[in-house]
Amino acid sequence: MNQFTRLSDVKDPAALIKRGLELKANPFTSNVGERKVLGLLFLNPSLRTRLSTQKAAMNLGMQVMVMNMNSEGWKLEMNDGTVMKGDAQEHIKDAIRVISEYVDVIGIRTFPGLKDRSADYDEAVLSAVLKYATVPVISLESAIRHPLQSLADMITINELGIQKPKVVLSWAPHPRALPQAVSNSFLEWVKVIDAEIILACPKGYELADEFIQGVPVVHDQLEAFENADIIYGKNWSSYHHYGEILPVQEDWTIDGSKMKVTNHARFMHCLPVRRNVVVSDDVLDNQSIIYQQAGNRTWAAQAVLESILDQL
Amino acid sequence: MNQFTRLSDVKDPAALIKRGLELKANPFTSNVGERKVLGLLFLNPSLRTRLSTQKAAMNLGMQVMVMNMNSEGWKLEMNDGTVMKGDAQEHIKDAIRVISEYVDVIGIRTFPGLKDRSADYDEAVLSAVLKYATVPVISLESAIRHPLQSLADMITINELGIQKPKVVLSWAPHPRALPQAVSNSFLEWVKVIDAEIILACPKGYELADEFIQGVPVVHDQLEAFENADIIYGKNWSSYHHYGEILPVQEDWTIDGSKMKVTNHARFMHCLPVRRNVVVSDDVLDNQSIIYQQAGNRTWAAQAVLESILDQL
Amino acid sequence: MNQFTRLSDVKDPAALIKRGLELKANPFTSNVGERKVLGLLFLNPSLRTRLSTQKAAMNLGMQVMVMNMNSEGWKLEMNDGTVMKGDAQEHIKDAIRVISEYVDVIGIRTFPGLKDRSADYDEAVLSAVLKYATVPVISLESAIRHPLQSLADMITINELGIQKPKVVLSWAPHPRALPQAVSNSFLEWVKVIDAEIILACPKGYELADEFIQGVPVVHDQLEAFENADIIYGKNWSSYHHYGEILPVQEDWTIDGSKMKVTNHARFMHCLPVRRNVVVSDDVLDNQSIIYQQAGNRTWAAQAVLESILDQL
Repeated sequence: MNQFTRLSDVKDPAALIKRGLELKANPFTSNVGERKVLGLLFLNPSLRTRLSTQKAAMNLGMQVMVMNMNSEGWKLEMNDGTVMKGDAQEHIKDAIRVISEYVDVIGIRTFPGLKDRSADYDEAVLSAVLKYATVPVISLESAIRHPLQSLADMITINELGIQKPKVVLSWAPHPRALPQAVSNSFLEWVKVIDAEIILACPKGYELADEFIQGVPVVHDQLEAFENADIIYGKNWSSYHHYGEILPVQEDWTIDGSKMKVTNHARFMHCLPVRRNVVVSDDVLDNQSIIYQQAGNRTWAAQAVLESILDQL
Repeated sequence: MNQFTRLSDVKDPAALIKRGLELKANPFTSNVGERKVLGLLFLNPSLRTRLSTQKAAMNLGMQVMVMNMNSEGWKLEMNDGTVMKGDAQEHIKDAIRVISEYVDVIGIRTFPGLKDRSADYDEAVLSAVLKYATVPVISLESAIRHPLQSLADMITINELGIQKPKVVLSWAPHPRALPQAVSNSFLEWVKVIDAEIILACPKGYELADEFIQGVPVVHDQLEAFENADIIYGKNWSSYHHYGEILPVQEDWTIDGSKMKVTNHARFMHCLPVRRNVVVSDDVLDNQSIIYQQAGNRTWAAQAVLESILDQL
Repeated sequence: MNQFTRLSDVKDPAALIKRGLELKANPFTSNVGERKVLGLLFLNPSLRTRLSTQKAAMNLGMQVMVMNMNSEGWKLEMNDGTVMKGDAQEHIKDAIRVISEYVDVIGIRTFPGLKDRSADYDEAVLSAVLKYATVPVISLESAIRHPLQSLADMITINELGIQKPKVVLSWAPHPRALPQAVSNSFLEWVKVIDAEIILACPKGYELADEFIQGVPVVHDQLEAFENADIIYGKNWSSYHHYGEILPVQEDWTIDGSKMKVTNHARFMHCLPVRRNVVVSDDVLDNQSIIYQQAGNRTWAAQAVLESILDQL
């Protein structure tokens, strides 16, 4: 693998999921990362992604350098040809090309602006990174995808051992406008495992066509939940009224009473989660596999890093 | 040892002090930390604690991941059952449980709010961390205790080799309201070595009963200093008028003239210290062992980490 | 070498340049850094310096601890004798002396205030660091010098293999008042290689006498560029009207038309660079060796660290 930014970068996703599970059983099987440096570049805060990717790299013998551009660096210019008289002190072209001199693999986290849909859905920032990096790039979440999360999600679902589970990706409320990345990516990846997938969301919250193609969309949350084996809760802002929080009449918070219509479903969420807004305490504390899911971030990252290091 | 948050977590404090001194003489005797990860989580800034604990861990072969929640992460919800519609993006329950997935030992620094005495003295935040962590926890200072500092202090006093020294913990002025943690902890730990301890402070600055039980409290600084072998200077805000800075008539800054009534006492302070407010330049530069004390933070942390790793 | 803060700290600069090139060819020849810790202390943001120095240290087997004083620490008091009732929580004397307890080598980045020329040109902060540190100190840029940059620059010029190249250090515009450190240091170091050096700048932008001694100063940019082999672009604020941005009538932005009068010169810059303000896109993208130059920061730092570790 030469880069890891979306499903199509992966030749054999099923093998990658399997490799993640193997690494979970035996984390220290390979020293392929020795004398290699992973540079983690955050344009946005991160906890799970930072720690799990760092741990994955160390398990492989890599050294890790973390750079938080906001608190430790400076503003980057994203557009070409600009006369840089403003706030931005360095062009992303130069920053990424230079960082490539110091590291063997770049991991980068960016977020969508949620203003300009075309820019976000063209992955403007990530595309620039890919264009200018001279070393392999791993997305630690981009404007519209979060593939390390999705790979960990597939590993987690695989561990449940349910034969063709019914999986519901359900929108849930949140006080802020959030990216669609986790949800897009989940729909992209869930197709590689043997599962039935349904998207449950209020009208106006349908995701982009490229991601919901072939996915039944249900606007009645309870109807969608019926007999489900897995409920994946997540908030996102509207794609069609881009970046907006639309008024929703019904209560979409996921709670124990709603979970009753499922087939004793397990609740999944990528975290961080706002308790009793997205989902109630009782569901999180009694029916969720959120910590197993978070733990699997390490093995997802380690499988990806290993596959990339194998090519160096 | 399964956790290190207060004296009572330590079965044999004298042995731990002795082990610290042994590690100072031979830092690289053990590789018990190999393939183990220490996660250092700071809810408040730190210099000595961060660097000394990181170094201690590396001496044992551990890997270290540092997370500054304020600049690199987000606000944590501390209360149970909250409908999380406010600033906090993640519950401490979830953050700590998830971090436990990525590290073998958690070190965490928190500070008291200095508003709600019950919450602070119940160690609300540290208790939550201990409740939710599934790996051993080391306090890097909590609301009311700073045990790594106190262990280093005991190692330092031990190194002086004075037979039953007279030790005075003296309050000193400071422009801000500071925690009582270092002082509480010092009184807790000094009892395990063979010393005479006196607390010197202005009226109203007496520490909590649980810490000054059996400790003579003197309100005349010079009287307390007489014949002392060690002066431990420190500011703290009032416990009885909780978190307040009370007006003090006398000058409590520790200076050379006051040190004259002592038995050529050595001056100690946990640092950072405000020079010429808490204590004068001449005392710090000529009669103090503050750097030796700071250096011993490494050996305190290494002894603690080693003892915890031995149990894994 | 016991410290690295300016050219005069280096006994044999030519040998150090040569060693940098050797390390570039064979980065992992030495494990002299094993069980040694490098502490990197930033009072100002950094990208290249942080990552390249960290990588250099890791190549030698060192452990690295990074401390960003602004976001992770607190304000340091720089003056002696102050009654520290203000913002500063710790005196630089104590911070540096304490950090010396935890690390084997200190790397520190400071910037000039650009208000008080005497303080800046006396290297007030760096001098304090050198005075109080009990371990070797490496400057990661100080008020008036940036020797790691200059060493990398000499390595880069050496790699070009041009017989006695004509080198022009040219001032260029910038919206902010910048330090003179990179330019001062470049003039200091360029004298150790066999080159012809010219300083091109608008009137009022002449650098300090100690740095331009023996260097022809030309106020006509095109005249200076004629037949040049290397154009080193850089902005700096005025030395004579200290820290000011003076009005400049002519256009000093370096572009392709100006480069035409050179001898197919290569363009150099320390980065970060404001594109189309300091220098045009076409020069950066077609005639520059800025990435090679940035990459050489690693080998400069590694040669310096190795030489210092050899003395420990």
